Amino acid sequence: MTEIGIGIVGGGYMGKAHAVAMASVGAVFGTALRPRLEMIAASSAESAERYRAAFGFDRAAADWCALVDDPRVEAVIIASPQDTHRAIAEAALALGKPVFCEKPLADTIADARAMVAAAEASGVVTMTGFNYIRTPASQFVRQLLAEGAIGDITWFRSEHTEDFLADPDAPFNWRCRGQANGNMGDLAPHPINAALALMGPVARVCAEVETVHRDRPGGTVDNDDHAQIMCRFASGVMGHIYSSRVATGRKMGYAYEIMGTKGAIRFDQEDQNAVWLYLADGPEATRGFRKILTGPAHPDYLPFCQGPGHGTGYQDQIIIEAKDFLTAIHSGQPVWSTFRDGLDVAEVIEAVHASAARGGWVNVSEMQERTE
Amino acid sequence: MTEIGIGIVGGGYMGKAHAVAMASVGAVFGTALRPRLEMIAASSAESAERYRAAFGFDRAAADWCALVDDPRVEAVIIASPQDTHRAIAEAALALGKPVFCEKPLADTIADARAMVAAAEASGVVTMTGFNYIRTPASQFVRQLLAEGAIGDITWFRSEHTEDFLADPDAPFNWRCRGQANGNMGDLAPHPINAALALMGPVARVCAEVETVHRDRPGGTVDNDDHAQIMCRFASGVMGHIYSSRVATGRKMGYAYEIMGTKGAIRFDQEDQNAVWLYLADGPEATRGFRKILTGPAHPDYLPFCQGPGHGTGYQDQIIIEAKDFLTAIHSGQPVWSTFRDGLDVAEVIEAVHASAARGGWVNVSEMQERTE
Amino acid sequence: MTEIGIGIVGGGYMGKAHAVAMASVGAVFGTALRPRLEMIAASSAESAERYRAAFGFDRAAADWCALVDDPRVEAVIIASPQDTHRAIAEAALALGKPVFCEKPLADTIADARAMVAAAEASGVVTMTGFNYIRTPASQFVRQLLAEGAIGDITWFRSEHTEDFLADPDAPFNWRCRGQANGNMGDLAPHPINAALALMGPVARVCAEVETVHRDRPGGTVDNDDHAQIMCRFASGVMGHIYSSRVATGRKMGYAYEIMGTKGAIRFDQEDQNAVWLYLADGPEATRGFRKILTGPAHPDYLPFCQGPGHGTGYQDQIIIEAKDFLTAIHSGQPVWSTFRDGLDVAEVIEAVHASAARGGWVNVSEMQERTE
Amino acid sequence: MTEIGIGIVGGGYMGKAHAVAMASVGAVFGTALRPRLEMIAASSAESAERYRAAFGFDRAAADWCALVDDPRVEAVIIASPQDTHRAIAEAALALGKPVFCEKPLADTIADARAMVAAAEASGVVTMTGFNYIRTPASQFVRQLLAEGAIGDITWFRSEHTEDFLADPDAPFNWRCRGQANGNMGDLAPHPINAALALMGPVARVCAEVETVHRDRPGGTVDNDDHAQIMCRFASGVMGHIYSSRVATGRKMGYAYEIMGTKGAIRFDQEDQNAVWLYLADGPEATRGFRKILTGPAHPDYLPFCQGPGHGTGYQDQIIIEAKDFLTAIHSGQPVWSTFRDGLDVAEVIEAVHASAARGGWVNVSEMQERTE
Repeated sequence: MTEIGIGIVGGGYMGKAHAVAMASVGAVFGTALRPRLEMIAASSAESAERYRAAFGFDRAAADWCALVDDPRVEAVIIASPQDTHRAIAEAALALGKPVFCEKPLADTIADARAMVAAAEASGVVTMTGFNYIRTPASQFVRQLLAEGAIGDITWFRSEHTEDFLADPDAPFNWRCRGQANGNMGDLAPHPINAALALMGPVARVCAEVETVHRDRPGGTVDNDDHAQIMCRFASGVMGHIYSSRVATGRKMGYAYEIMGTKGAIRFDQEDQNAVWLYLADGPEATRGFRKILTGPAHPDYLPFCQGPGHGTGYQDQIIIEAKDFLTAIHSGQPVWSTFRDGLDVAEVIEAVHASAARGGWVNVSEMQERTE
Repeated sequence: MTEIGIGIVGGGYMGKAHAVAMASVGAVFGTALRPRLEMIAASSAESAERYRAAFGFDRAAADWCALVDDPRVEAVIIASPQDTHRAIAEAALALGKPVFCEKPLADTIADARAMVAAAEASGVVTMTGFNYIRTPASQFVRQLLAEGAIGDITWFRSEHTEDFLADPDAPFNWRCRGQANGNMGDLAPHPINAALALMGPVARVCAEVETVHRDRPGGTVDNDDHAQIMCRFASGVMGHIYSSRVATGRKMGYAYEIMGTKGAIRFDQEDQNAVWLYLADGPEATRGFRKILTGPAHPDYLPFCQGPGHGTGYQDQIIIEAKDFLTAIHSGQPVWSTFRDGLDVAEVIEAVHASAARGGWVNVSEMQERTE
Repeated sequence: MTEIGIGIVGGGYMGKAHAVAMASVGAVFGTALRPRLEMIAASSAESAERYRAAFGFDRAAADWCALVDDPRVEAVIIASPQDTHRAIAEAALALGKPVFCEKPLADTIADARAMVAAAEASGVVTMTGFNYIRTPASQFVRQLLAEGAIGDITWFRSEHTEDFLADPDAPFNWRCRGQANGNMGDLAPHPINAALALMGPVARVCAEVETVHRDRPGGTVDNDDHAQIMCRFASGVMGHIYSSRVATGRKMGYAYEIMGTKGAIRFDQEDQNAVWLYLADGPEATRGFRKILTGPAHPDYLPFCQGPGHGTGYQDQIIIEAKDFLTAIHSGQPVWSTFRDGLDVAEVIEAVHASAARGGWVNVSEMQERTE
Repeated sequence: MTEIGIGIVGGGYMGKAHAVAMASVGAVFGTALRPRLEMIAASSAESAERYRAAFGFDRAAADWCALVDDPRVEAVIIASPQDTHRAIAEAALALGKPVFCEKPLADTIADARAMVAAAEASGVVTMTGFNYIRTPASQFVRQLLAEGAIGDITWFRSEHTEDFLADPDAPFNWRCRGQANGNMGDLAPHPINAALALMGPVARVCAEVETVHRDRPGGTVDNDDHAQIMCRFASGVMGHIYSSRVATGRKMGYAYEIMGTKGAIRFDQEDQNAVWLYLADGPEATRGFRKILTGPAHPDYLPFCQGPGHGTGYQDQIIIEAKDFLTAIHSGQPVWSTFRDGLDVAEVIEAVHASAARGGWVNVSEMQERTE
């Protein structure tokens, strides 16, 4: 066992989640590398100190530069606003420090491309934070697909729906400003990432992006509330992706369904410990979607509990990410999802915006060609 | 109570359903008009006689002309192949006989328009058979929407998914030939009708229509297996419609979700006696989708059973249609859904095909303008 | 095809259900015997005439004697209050007319025994009306058990829960008076019948029977609101049965779970078209309760609809009963459940009352011995 | 913030869970007392060292005495076999060290009583580990009951069902020997604790305790597989409790339903982030069980995640226990559930065994009187 000094930039929602994950991951997974909560940075020295005390870090940094430069910080987790991602990542990579960056990878696609370039130039381990795909359930779904359990895929649908801005009278806040904070920056990356992870590359999209509630108490919203995407995968399969922050009643509506020639899979994160699997075999009379509860037979479950059906939760996904990040650092082998995987998502998003503006089909490769 | 002589053209799947419905509806609803199972016609005298005996009709007709012309047949139900609908309907309307026609209204949109013209010229009661929207559950949903229970609508999604051709090795059959027998003719009318019934007119569509399994044992499929439609309602709301006959694991996947500013509704015909309603009121801690079981408090339920939750089934939808048809005849007032409503669905379908061919958005009004 | 004249005593809840069933069953099942709605009797000539007109009977009878004696009435359905069952059944059986009697078989166990004796002496077909066990779903469960699909049974639990008297302020009505109208007479026969049908004879019981709300506006309740029964089947299996009319939120809570060495089954009538089946085979990772939607592969479904998942409802159960009754009459072979099967339920109920009074285990055979 | 040295006896299933919890709880809850993973003891020095390294403790102890006596160990968590609980607890309490003891409190009721006596004599904080009742969902249910949200309770049912010994061919293991390792010692404490926590004291029980599979490959089972309990609460409410380790298909079947005069609650740990609440208010047409997803509005959820519906899992329950234990130590105030609460469960279990042996109702107070 070797210690590794962890520095986290940002102490809000995701910063805390990563702090807890780094405090737990050693005991949970018995990792070879053991994180030491070395330093946390935030938007001010005061808030950094508050986070330090709350989460149990050794030291607080007044700004992210001090954290990145600190020699005892050996790996950096970026959980600060999107427009800061690129600078922090480039600084850390330049020092040869592994970087975990929350999604979306960057504020703009140009920044995302620059980050990938920096990562590939540095040869250092990077990771983009797509947590939902890392549940034992969704990892198991990836296994099922890889094994061909449901045959050739004929249809894919994913969504990520929440309702935190469904009330038109909810006041204007920071989420209502800037494309990266809108639905397309905040929520859409998840079901798009699910699409890529489960189905492979998206070839083209035809999309609508809409602000449902333009005027809110306190300001005018300048980013989107929801978006729908018809897509065609490189494999030839037809699909649909929907994301929304105004989906009344939905709290964690990260969900997908995948139809194949031999079976089908349905999943909804609101019941994250269950995978619904239909197999078109055996007598017709006994066919049906079975509700499989995750357990030790599924990926990354056993370290949390020996009992099937006992369940993992949101925080456990972040612990799994932490394990994957440490494993990548220790082995020097990249672990899915790298910065490049984060860029793949960003390119689909770019194509979606282009399609919505233009009103028709857009090839994702157009987005790639623009800069390469 | 007055008797009315019913003639049914066709004794297959839907012909039988209407025969049973006409045998039951008087006792169930205590209708003012009491149907007499007068005559049934089929593709041959032999099969007509077989249906007559099985379903309990007084007489069998060797062809539909004999049935329509018979003076004791006072109302006609058309449950024969789509390409026969127009001729039968026109003949019956010309004699001033009310006509109930199964969906889709006709084989081609030109025929559908001709039928509407004939209906409107005759002044006789007509009806198009959209049964699923007539469950107590879906009628209740229409009530909720009319009352504004979930506020202003912000998103709509419907689907109709089955899997009877999901197996690529399923042999070629009559459903694999002719546009009207494909998914767009067979299944899509239901979720499109749901969209119109629940949300009002569709302004424009952007769609994909696809044959997933082109070659089957015994023949080459010339119609579609599934289709997806992005749509924009005249009300401004964004929506999505999907239909498929290759949706492995789905047996009666007529389903929809409707999000509004004050609530949301979810429904799935596979559990047809439940409406899921979310209301964004009361304390946050007690909000959730409630599973409402249909009962005497919901439309057209009580005649079937005094007990809530005891449930209605597929055949009961047809009995409700029969009641509505008889009521319309008796009162002389049209009852939703008339031939005109059937044509509305056909026009959306026409626009979907145009969009899929062209690859972009198509205004439904274009379809209307073409002929008017 | 032969006609048979049907007479129904009672035009309330169940009388109507049987009238509709007899109007429909020929067309649905293509039965060899075709019912003619000959005559209906009720508590007064006026109400009988009202029912006659509403349900479409040829004639109304001023009292049940006239109905039973009428030569054109060839089979009798008893849907009148429990305390009238015995006299009607004995009169009909004495004339050699087949009798269908609603559950519970009689008001007292002595009457039930007399009815069985009369039935067995007459050699005429009899039937007791247990409708819920006749859904395609529950018939399929019986098949699964017969085939040993879930191995040796280790645990059984059933319930029938509704909430029509859950509100303590609901006024006193006829259901609040007389043991046969209480929960033990009204609801408990269903889950007890389920236990017998699915598991075989009950050897002994230990039970509690309770009136939860004794005083209601308008009167003092003298029968029970709910009861629980620990039971031991003759097969040695342990079980539990619960029934309640004060089960807030439950509308049609006829439900059971059966655990076996190789699998398990769960069913809830509130979603009556689904059977949940778990099979302990295949890899651990893909095991789960599968939700099987009823369809043509299941008993008595196809006559209602060719499409799986399209669903049957409450009224369809009564149509299945009608088909079974007609089949038994036509063949002369008894069909489960006869009067004897109704008595089996009554004896368990008797034992439950004895156990509740005595406060410990009671052998059901004690109840049998008392009179035989 | 103050550090506190934690010693854990046992490094198996629950020992690991507590180690992870103590590593995480500070960052999650920002507790005033911050645990230091000081020492772990196991059945041998080798295994203790292995656990130390895996979970990140400072030191390993060759036996529990060394751990309890160590001055840097300031609080003790007992996660070793039941027959060791008493000795460890007494030793720690004698030194004035707070003790958290896994359920069941002890191997015998005499030991459990001795432990309570020692705890009360010492005045030191104690806790018995009932984790399932500590989910945000079940804590919320306790709130709802306390507020009278569902009125006066009329019926209670709980269960804890798993299937790890459902296969009769599963080999004999340590769980098959000794009453404390059987279903009544291992699983039953959970639904009994749920009953006490949600409903208050149990007055009397009538129960069956059964070994379903007596002979297993490798040995003869001497403890029970499942048990059912009819119970009467001190409040007068009737209830039923079932627990089983042979409940095929059930993985974490900790479930309960509570009926009241104004509403009802249903919960199943297999979907641990949902509470089903029915309220008998508003129009009949909109009543139904609502599925409430836990979120920041519910107890002990927010520290894990700001987003509702994102979910907590098994390990999070143990973190909540850790927080409660630390809070109790810091404040000096006992926190439910103390050793006394653990004894309450043990007394019900004792009464269940007595009832099963005797075959009738047993007052729980009889068990209490025996020794006091």
